[in-house]
Amino acid sequence: MEGHIVLPPLGQTEWTLLWAVLASAFVAMGYGWYLVRRVLAEDPGTKKMQEIARAIEEGAMAYLGRQVRTMIWFVVLMAAGLFLMYYSVPEQYPHPLPIGVAVAFLMGVMASYGAGYVGMWLAVKANLRTANAALKGFKPALELAFRAGTVSGMFTVGFGLLGAVLIFMIFQENAMKVLIGFGFGGSLAALFMRVGGGIFTKAADVGADLVGKIEQNIPEDDPRNPAVIADNVGDNVGDCAGMAADIFESYEVTLVAAIILAAVCTVSLDFTAIYGEHASTFALKLILYPLLIRAVGVFSSIIGTWAVRGKEEELADPMRPITVGYWTASLVSVVGFLIVNYFYLLDPFTGAPDFRFFWATTMGIVLAIVTLWLTNHFTHPDLRPTTETAIAARTGAATLLLAGMAEGFESTVWAAVAIGLTILSSLVIFPDSPALAAYGIALTGLGLLTTTGFILAMDTYGPITDNAHGIFEMSGITEEHEASRNLAWMDAIGNTTKALTKGLAIATAVIAAISLFRSFIDATGLMEKGIQVNLPEVFVGLLIGGAVPFLFSSFAIKAVGRAAYLVVQEVRRQFREHPGIMTYDEKPEYGTCVSIVTAAAQKELLGPAILAIATPILIGFGLGPGALGGYLAGAILTGQLLAGYMCNTGATWDNAKKKIEDGFLGGKGTPAHVASVIGDTVGDPYKDTAGPAFNPLIKVMNLVGLLVAPFIIDVHLHEASVGRILIVVLCLIVLGIGIVFSKRGSLAEMAEEEEKSQVAQG
Amino acid sequence: MEGHIVLPPLGQTEWTLLWAVLASAFVAMGYGWYLVRRVLAEDPGTKKMQEIARAIEEGAMAYLGRQVRTMIWFVVLMAAGLFLMYYSVPEQYPHPLPIGVAVAFLMGVMASYGAGYVGMWLAVKANLRTANAALKGFKPALELAFRAGTVSGMFTVGFGLLGAVLIFMIFQENAMKVLIGFGFGGSLAALFMRVGGGIFTKAADVGADLVGKIEQNIPEDDPRNPAVIADNVGDNVGDCAGMAADIFESYEVTLVAAIILAAVCTVSLDFTAIYGEHASTFALKLILYPLLIRAVGVFSSIIGTWAVRGKEEELADPMRPITVGYWTASLVSVVGFLIVNYFYLLDPFTGAPDFRFFWATTMGIVLAIVTLWLTNHFTHPDLRPTTETAIAARTGAATLLLAGMAEGFESTVWAAVAIGLTILSSLVIFPDSPALAAYGIALTGLGLLTTTGFILAMDTYGPITDNAHGIFEMSGITEEHEASRNLAWMDAIGNTTKALTKGLAIATAVIAAISLFRSFIDATGLMEKGIQVNLPEVFVGLLIGGAVPFLFSSFAIKAVGRAAYLVVQEVRRQFREHPGIMTYDEKPEYGTCVSIVTAAAQKELLGPAILAIATPILIGFGLGPGALGGYLAGAILTGQLLAGYMCNTGATWDNAKKKIEDGFLGGKGTPAHVASVIGDTVGDPYKDTAGPAFNPLIKVMNLVGLLVAPFIIDVHLHEASVGRILIVVLCLIVLGIGIVFSKRGSLAEMAEEEEKSQVAQG
Repeated sequence: MEGHIVLPPLGQTEWTLLWAVLASAFVAMGYGWYLVRRVLAEDPGTKKMQEIARAIEEGAMAYLGRQVRTMIWFVVLMAAGLFLMYYSVPEQYPHPLPIGVAVAFLMGVMASYGAGYVGMWLAVKANLRTANAALKGFKPALELAFRAGTVSGMFTVGFGLLGAVLIFMIFQENAMKVLIGFGFGGSLAALFMRVGGGIFTKAADVGADLVGKIEQNIPEDDPRNPAVIADNVGDNVGDCAGMAADIFESYEVTLVAAIILAAVCTVSLDFTAIYGEHASTFALKLILYPLLIRAVGVFSSIIGTWAVRGKEEELADPMRPITVGYWTASLVSVVGFLIVNYFYLLDPFTGAPDFRFFWATTMGIVLAIVTLWLTNHFTHPDLRPTTETAIAARTGAATLLLAGMAEGFESTVWAAVAIGLTILSSLVIFPDSPALAAYGIALTGLGLLTTTGFILAMDTYGPITDNAHGIFEMSGITEEHEASRNLAWMDAIGNTTKALTKGLAIATAVIAAISLFRSFIDATGLMEKGIQVNLPEVFVGLLIGGAVPFLFSSFAIKAVGRAAYLVVQEVRRQFREHPGIMTYDEKPEYGTCVSIVTAAAQKELLGPAILAIATPILIGFGLGPGALGGYLAGAILTGQLLAGYMCNTGATWDNAKKKIEDGFLGGKGTPAHVASVIGDTVGDPYKDTAGPAFNPLIKVMNLVGLLVAPFIIDVHLHEASVGRILIVVLCLIVLGIGIVFSKRGSLAEMAEEEEKSQVAQG
Repeated sequence: MEGHIVLPPLGQTEWTLLWAVLASAFVAMGYGWYLVRRVLAEDPGTKKMQEIARAIEEGAMAYLGRQVRTMIWFVVLMAAGLFLMYYSVPEQYPHPLPIGVAVAFLMGVMASYGAGYVGMWLAVKANLRTANAALKGFKPALELAFRAGTVSGMFTVGFGLLGAVLIFMIFQENAMKVLIGFGFGGSLAALFMRVGGGIFTKAADVGADLVGKIEQNIPEDDPRNPAVIADNVGDNVGDCAGMAADIFESYEVTLVAAIILAAVCTVSLDFTAIYGEHASTFALKLILYPLLIRAVGVFSSIIGTWAVRGKEEELADPMRPITVGYWTASLVSVVGFLIVNYFYLLDPFTGAPDFRFFWATTMGIVLAIVTLWLTNHFTHPDLRPTTETAIAARTGAATLLLAGMAEGFESTVWAAVAIGLTILSSLVIFPDSPALAAYGIALTGLGLLTTTGFILAMDTYGPITDNAHGIFEMSGITEEHEASRNLAWMDAIGNTTKALTKGLAIATAVIAAISLFRSFIDATGLMEKGIQVNLPEVFVGLLIGGAVPFLFSSFAIKAVGRAAYLVVQEVRRQFREHPGIMTYDEKPEYGTCVSIVTAAAQKELLGPAILAIATPILIGFGLGPGALGGYLAGAILTGQLLAGYMCNTGATWDNAKKKIEDGFLGGKGTPAHVASVIGDTVGDPYKDTAGPAFNPLIKVMNLVGLLVAPFIIDVHLHEASVGRILIVVLCLIVLGIGIVFSKRGSLAEMAEEEEKSQVAQG
């Protein structure tokens, strides 16, 4: 049981290795800082461009400022709660552990937020520099954008590794318990950033398009649209800050889970039977191995980003440099695993390297490649699924929508099968020890995220080029300009990299959640009895856990609808009250749209956040640990399937539209194009709000489960204590508030008004 | 373990009761036959109406004929497989059990098919009589349509009860094993009828609309549309035959599961500890109780249908007579449960009635009412969810689609919570015996389906009035005619009753599947060890099981798209080659469309059917019984959630369109109306193809699990035998064929042509 496991004492070798890992964290951050300097040294372009970029920067920073003010109460409350909770069980959590967990939680929140902050801070400075570099050519623009993206990756990796190593050095044998707090902080912040950013970006996007494109018939990124800056800000808060925070927590949580599962080996009967007197020392090696793998990742990511070199003549296949970079990073990682395994993980009996750990870690790289392949297959404009979806536009929007959904449904199935096979591979690699097999799955997650630095570079590259393109258009540089074409190309690649990263983020989230789930089982001491879904209360837990992601989707989609409608009203108001905007005689007021979406996104966070935290507590205290286990399994299952479905369906619709805009079926302006625009709009909250938000959701829920585990071990279905009833009632009240809250808003009011006016007329 | 349980010998009382139940089966069928005579005696209307009705009848019957020819090979193969399988384990299945199971399987197929056949056979005769009765008024038309619908209910109940009692009488102590075969036959036929009917109905509907409404701008049900008869045929094969077969199998399967779970009590330690020397006799009572409850259902349904009385002045609330009927049927059922419990289920120690069984059964009635309330809330045109969805049409199709999806996602969550609470209620009613708690859940399923006769009457009423309305319009009777208004009203109620029945069908399917799942666990002897999702292979099973309904949706939606496209091509051809059709100078050839959809629907069945049968076998033999348990749990979970999501979202979109057509937001012809038509079309395969097909899917998979259970008990993950490898490879090959098959077709060919023509142009 987790509550009673302490890590073996650290020896001289371990301390040396910890210092080395710490050094590599500083290497990551130092390299990131070096890139910041290089990017900032570039020419920021014309005054007009700088003006536009400043508006985006101000909006983005204002959003993050507001985010802190929303989170702060939640976070302080949670930290206090964690402290009190553990303070009440001093046998398992002696002083200073409760305060350590609370502080680690706060550190986790800050690190996750910080990773998002730094990445976005530079992105909003890099966008206009990229736009300016595009005037010189494709190569300098590509490399600048990618370099700026790399900063996000480097600081994410650096913060994650720094936090973990420091906790290890300070708390030593109790590090595991404190690490959970750190991971939880990171996940909670990521949930806020992901959901808030997702609502912001799509509310602004949909709102801007509905009035701009449809009512006023002005193009995208037209400076006359009052919501255009909010739309560009949205790209940053969603795709930079949200994604960095999301990946940060997966990075952290896989590390925490791997360390816990290694520590569990020390008390596992099958492991100790195999390793006998060496069990403790070998387990210590397994505990440190994840940190070493992470250190390998720092260097492989850096080397990978070096390999990204644009060539002017390569415009025909602009994705190539990034693909080369990714393969380089992967290859270097595998070599790194091999070296670490060869020198460090020796079989204690024979002294020969035990390569099983190498294979388990490498399976993560394989899973990453398979996932990228699958995502690419289902969303690439030139491959069968997207082509068939586009073809369906011939008979209208309805058939296009159905075709895209069918592809999305299928895509998520294969992603699930790939993850299933990965899990089985760990059973094949470690056939004789369930404890090692569980650890092997966590290693797969570590392997999958080794190239985190590169993956985030790839992702952040997307919004930077998207913004650069927008700044260009708003500055009035014509579409015919060569630089504009370069940016359009880069923007298109950016869409691909964003889609690919989302696919990877889901896979990592699932593996991380599965590892956490396994840790939960160890923590509740349920390993022997197991989470038996044959028991009715566990099955009910599974049902409710599986249902929660559906409710979460409902909340997220409605939130976008409501917030977008507020934007529509504001944009309409500006056009109505200031007719000069359309004739360029008046300047629209960009700031009001930004603050409307900022406020709306923060308000809409409440429902999903309550759902993620209160429901697992309710199930745990209401129906016991087994039911909570079922709940977590159900949530992972449907969360993953819906995430893959929504992200891929959205990307397929998006690319079907792009394909048609590129001339397929007659190109822009045809009925097929109109149909594909509808598909793309439906896909927006799918792929950018609800879809990616499942990642932090399933991890937060698993971490909540892990945190409350020590307190629900003794909960039995038919026994009622006052404390338990109080907690259950409290959770129900809080959930009720969250649900009622998520139903109020602009649409309901509109519906009421309409009904009234109908009655008045009739 | 199921393989070793034999039922206690039947005494004099039991035989008397069995004869009484048999008599009630004949009452149901006799009453059904009496109604057939009454309906056929009604005036079939004008020659023109008869001509149209004949075309529908011929198409519908041709479809069912073709259905038999498709199923026959599958069915014969499965029967032979079942026989051989059980023949190979003579200790558990001595002669004549293997032949008994195979014959029972065939009987199940015939009964399920027969239930669908009879219902549809009368529906296609009742539609024009209803149309004619509408000329006299609302009351005679409503009552005639409902009476005709009741026939479907009565024969379904009669066949189900007859088959079960006969098997009981013939096989006595081995009845349980044979009953599984009967249930499996019913489920398999239902899967074929549901999926085939669902593809047929929506392919015809979408195909007819795409060319008729959109390209040629002619109204729905216009006799010039060559696909109009196919569309009307589709209503019958989908909503009459498909639904009747579906409900038949839920009816049968809950009965089978309740009997198995009662039989399991005889070997359950907790049960025998409580009842001691009375255990065997009391368990026998529990085994017969489900049959008695079913007999109660015959009478409560009949009384309920009597209570459906239309009043001319009640047009303001035309749903009222049906609601009154439903409440009557429910109330009579509860009284019936009370009487049976009072006289029959006495505590063996005290002799007082043990009302716990009454409460468990009544919970089913409560769940039915809650489910109906939830479905109504989320889909009724005048309530908040549909109104908000309609309002969203103001800003276009995309926002309407998103709003409807958000409502659908939420609706399925509450349905899952309702089912979860029902399961927990059984734990509260039977706190001290897990075996009785499991039996209690099965009783809830029985209670839920007590009013089957009434539910099917309500459902079949839908297509009858829909068809009647169509026949009216095609006969050229103007919209202003009072009778046409009556039928439009009745048609609108029909849509509501269809939506409500779908909600109920899902709930029954889930409860039935959960009971089967529990039987599976007993059959594999996994009760002690449990289905532990914490074990990696079980979790992988859960993942794959959860993914299968997503793949199934993908298949079903694509199938509709492909088949609809074939209809579009044929309709376009007819209009092109016979320009006289549009000017009424030529008659369109209805038959070709009917045979195209018939052939397409049968062809498209292959993929989903293979998926349902081969995947559980693959998981069972590949990863063992625990993984198969996880698989079944995962499939129930996502199958239920997706079914609720798809049925309710589809109904919400449908009703949002109706609301707008009734004048909301400006009514027909407005952009909001155009947007709502897109929503309705997307919803068609959601609510009529994929959504309802999950019901037979999850039951067939659970039954396959139950059937292979005795053969996989000894399968262990790391041991490979030749037989096991052969089965796994065979399943993979068959699955591969099914998947590849589901990818070929019209859309892929179109995509290829388009790409080629682009290359040729470029």
